[in-house]
Formats: sequence, C-alpha cells, structure tokens
Amino acid sequence: MAEVTDSGTLLRDRYGSDADDLALHLDEAGTIAGLLGHRSVRAFDSRPLAPATVDTLIAAAQSASTSSNLQSWSVVVIRDESRKSEVAALAGDQQFIRDAPLFLVFVADWARGAAISRGRGEAAEGIDYFDSTLVATIDAAIAAQNAVVAAESLGLGAVFVGAVRNHPDELAALLGLPHASYPVVGVAVGWPDEHRPARVKPRLPQSVVRHDESYAAASDDDLAVYDEALRLFNQSQGRTGGWLDAVVARVRSRSALHGRERLRGILSSRGLPSS
Amino acid sequence: MAEVTDSGTLLRDRYGSDADDLALHLDEAGTIAGLLGHRSVRAFDSRPLAPATVDTLIAAAQSASTSSNLQSWSVVVIRDESRKSEVAALAGDQQFIRDAPLFLVFVADWARGAAISRGRGEAAEGIDYFDSTLVATIDAAIAAQNAVVAAESLGLGAVFVGAVRNHPDELAALLGLPHASYPVVGVAVGWPDEHRPARVKPRLPQSVVRHDESYAAASDDDLAVYDEALRLFNQSQGRTGGWLDAVVARVRSRSALHGRERLRGILSSRGLPSS
Repeated sequence: MAEVTDSGTLLRDRYGSDADDLALHLDEAGTIAGLLGHRSVRAFDSRPLAPATVDTLIAAAQSASTSSNLQSWSVVVIRDESRKSEVAALAGDQQFIRDAPLFLVFVADWARGAAISRGRGEAAEGIDYFDSTLVATIDAAIAAQNAVVAAESLGLGAVFVGAVRNHPDELAALLGLPHASYPVVGVAVGWPDEHRPARVKPRLPQSVVRHDESYAAASDDDLAVYDEALRLFNQSQGRTGGWLDAVVARVRSRSALHGRERLRGILSSRGLPSS
Repeated sequence: MAEVTDSGTLLRDRYGSDADDLALHLDEAGTIAGLLGHRSVRAFDSRPLAPATVDTLIAAAQSASTSSNLQSWSVVVIRDESRKSEVAALAGDQQFIRDAPLFLVFVADWARGAAISRGRGEAAEGIDYFDSTLVATIDAAIAAQNAVVAAESLGLGAVFVGAVRNHPDELAALLGLPHASYPVVGVAVGWPDEHRPARVKPRLPQSVVRHDESYAAASDDDLAVYDEALRLFNQSQGRTGGWLDAVVARVRSRSALHGRERLRGILSSRGLPSS
C-alpha cells in the first residue's frame, strides 16, 4: 500500500511543507505510511473487482467500532452499470461514479432497530432524538473509512461522495431504503487509472487543527502559509485559487449547499426527526 | 499490528461463526488483518506515550478524506491528569479515560471557517444548515477512525467514547471550544494492559448490513443466529444477555439517551442550528 515510507517525504507531501516540528512513529508493516499517503482517486481504469474484494471491504467496515455495538448502519453495494448511472445522476452527476466498478452507499439505519423493538410490541421512541441520528451517522462514517483504508491497502483507489445527500429522498427510493434510514456518504472504489494519477493533497498545519489541552484559534500566519501551499498544489493540478477563498465560498451563503439546505426537513420526514 | 493473519480465523472471530459464504483478500503488509482484528481496549497499563506517537496519530487523522478539503474539524489532545479526570467526569465517569495516557476529543468545528469568512466582511450563513453540522461531524468521525487505525498499527489500544456528547456545553467550556463547534467523539489511547486483554467482538452477519443493489430487511433467522453468537461472546466475558435485548433497551424509550435527548437544543445554542 505504501509507496513512500520515509517520514520526511510523508510529512512534506501531507503538509506541503517540511513540517519539521513533527516526528512520526511508523509501524514496520507500513499501515501508517499508507494512511498518510491517502489521496482521493477519481480516475479509474476498467478492471472489475473480485467478489472477495467486496466481501473484504465490507468485513473491514463492520470491524470498525460501533456505538454500544448497535451497528445502526447499512451499506448498499452497487455494481450494476445502469443502477450506478442512476445513482450518479442523483449524486452530483459525477462521471467517476459511473467509471468505478463499485459504488458503496453507507446508510444511517435505525430501521433495523425499530423493527426489532416493534416486533416485540415495544415503541421505538429512542430514535426520535437527534443524538440517535448522530450515532448512526458516525457509525456509518467510520465504517466507510475502514472500507477506504482496506481498499487502499489492496492498491485500489477510493473517494468519498457526500453528494449522496443532494437528493436523499430520490436516492432512498431508488435503493429501497426504509423509513428511519438515510444515505450518509458514498464511496467509489476501483483500480486507479495509472495514466491519471492522483497526488496527496496538503492539509492544514497540524498546529491549526490540534489543540493541546484546550482550544486555541488558528493564527493568521498559519492559515496564510497553508493557503499558499494549497495554491501551489492546485497549480500543479492545473487549477487556480487557494484555500481561504474556497472556505469563504462554502461558508458565506446557503447557495453553496446545492439543495442540501433542505436536508433537515427531509430527514424528519424519513423518520429521523430533530427532537 | 496483526497477530492473526489467516482468513478463516479472522472471519470466525469477527462474525462469531465460520462465515464460509465470505472470502477475504488480504494485503501482504497485514493492514486488513489489523482492521479485522480491531477490538475496543478499555484496560491500559501505566506506560506513557512518546510525543512522536501523538504527532503520528494526528497526522493520520488529518490524512483522512475531508469534505471539499474544508477540514471543518479539530482535535483536543488531553494528557494532563487532572484535566483528563475532569473530562472523564463529564463523559460517563468512565475510569478508563483516567487510566489512558491520552484522550483525544474530536470536534466538529465551523468556528474556523466562520472566522475566516467574517474576517473578510462576509456572512457565515452556510453553517446555519443541518448538512453543515453533518459535514463537520462526518469529517471528525473519519479523522478519529484513522487515528484509531494508526494507534492499533503501533500496538496501542483505543476505544471510542460517545459520552463526550453527554454534557457537550460543560465539556466545551472546559476545553475552551468556540461557538459553532461541538465534541463529536472521544478516543482514549494507551498501551493495552496485557493482564486484561480485550477480545474481538462478533458483528452481525455480513448479509444483514450488506444490501446488494437494493435494501432488503434482515431475516429473523440471521438476527437470531447473531443474537446467540453475541450471547456466547458475552458469557465468555462474564456478562449475560444477547444482542436483541440490548437493541430494544436502546430503542424503545428516550430514557436510554442519558441526557443526550437535549443535544439538538444544545447544538442550536452553540451556533449549529437545525435549519
């Protein structure tokens, strides 16, 4: 999984700078080098995946922690070409979803728990609270991340797709998702197209997201350094702009939500109310 | 990281059954065997962690995907004994938080983005929508999972702590978390106490959580098989009960939420409204 195994290069790629205030402990097997070397892959070649690969990704996902072992999530495995194309149309119409041989939709799923409780003549009042939606959402997210780590350890490429929340009702209808469930994230998986390789994208300096003992606001200097590092990265990819502009564009108005501003009402109508 | 490397044993431990309908693809380095061998560790010995280990866990967390590269999360690194004890008191009063040399609080954080936008004289209306809370929550969760995978690959033990949401306002005050942020999950990390080893907990049959092409409700038979597998596991740990009872106890009424039924209102008051 790890092509690069020395700390200096791993840190330089990950932070877009020498990051010489940091030191790494690397395991011999290369798992950590693999994690640091993550890059989102959106260009896949046409090779299919073996069925055992899919079994493995789901087993890895199930191996992640789950709140109180409730396992309040599900995953829809989509390989059928025409179905994948329909899903893509609902999820930002992104071509790489059609190109990938596998698209996984991770679902926050209280339908199973509610059915079990009601099957015993009990209520299911506990799922009417926002924390329950969060529990299922977090469970689904960390399961998805394990699937991504497993895929990458096999040399596959993967990318998260938050756009499965653009039209959650329509996607739920297409996939037959029951009441009290919703699609949290998608993951497209396939063999990376070696002619269109992805690069590691630099992240914020560790000092910005990390707060020792208590929270401290980021310094303007740290943010400016990162803005420049991301601008250089974007240039290397034939794109323009830095990080700060992108943040402002997303934060300043609801127009950047592309329909997801309706999500709260949709979840409520799907039996995941905001109590 | 992986003590067990053969597919049969990995599947048997993970599913509490032979799971002979499944096949695994394992990478040579052992990353997937490590993922499948995950167990939540709540018994730590007193050895401290090296500073480089903490750097590494956070770098791994930052290497996870993040929606549109917004990086709308933070992590508070807690090693101070008295502070850790205060956090423990707010998070279910769990002793293992005090015992662990490191407690990480992963935070959904729109405060950084809002400050950047307002610093340019723009609004921050985009964070007023539920999907923004979800984006930050999912980012924080998958970052946390990467930290857990990294910790386990170094031979450390870790456990998620959802109870950081029991008293989010008080915890936020203790950690100095700003408006437009909230604690999503905690992760306790340390060296496993070899005298109190944790075992792999069986999960639902893959057929229950996995839906090929479209969702299908779980069969009562599959659920009953798992209920028995978990009952046997619990007995091996000196506990009683199966899975179905635990699900019903959590789902049937709000009393199982232990105060988290107030979460929606608390997030709204923290600047993460439910629009």
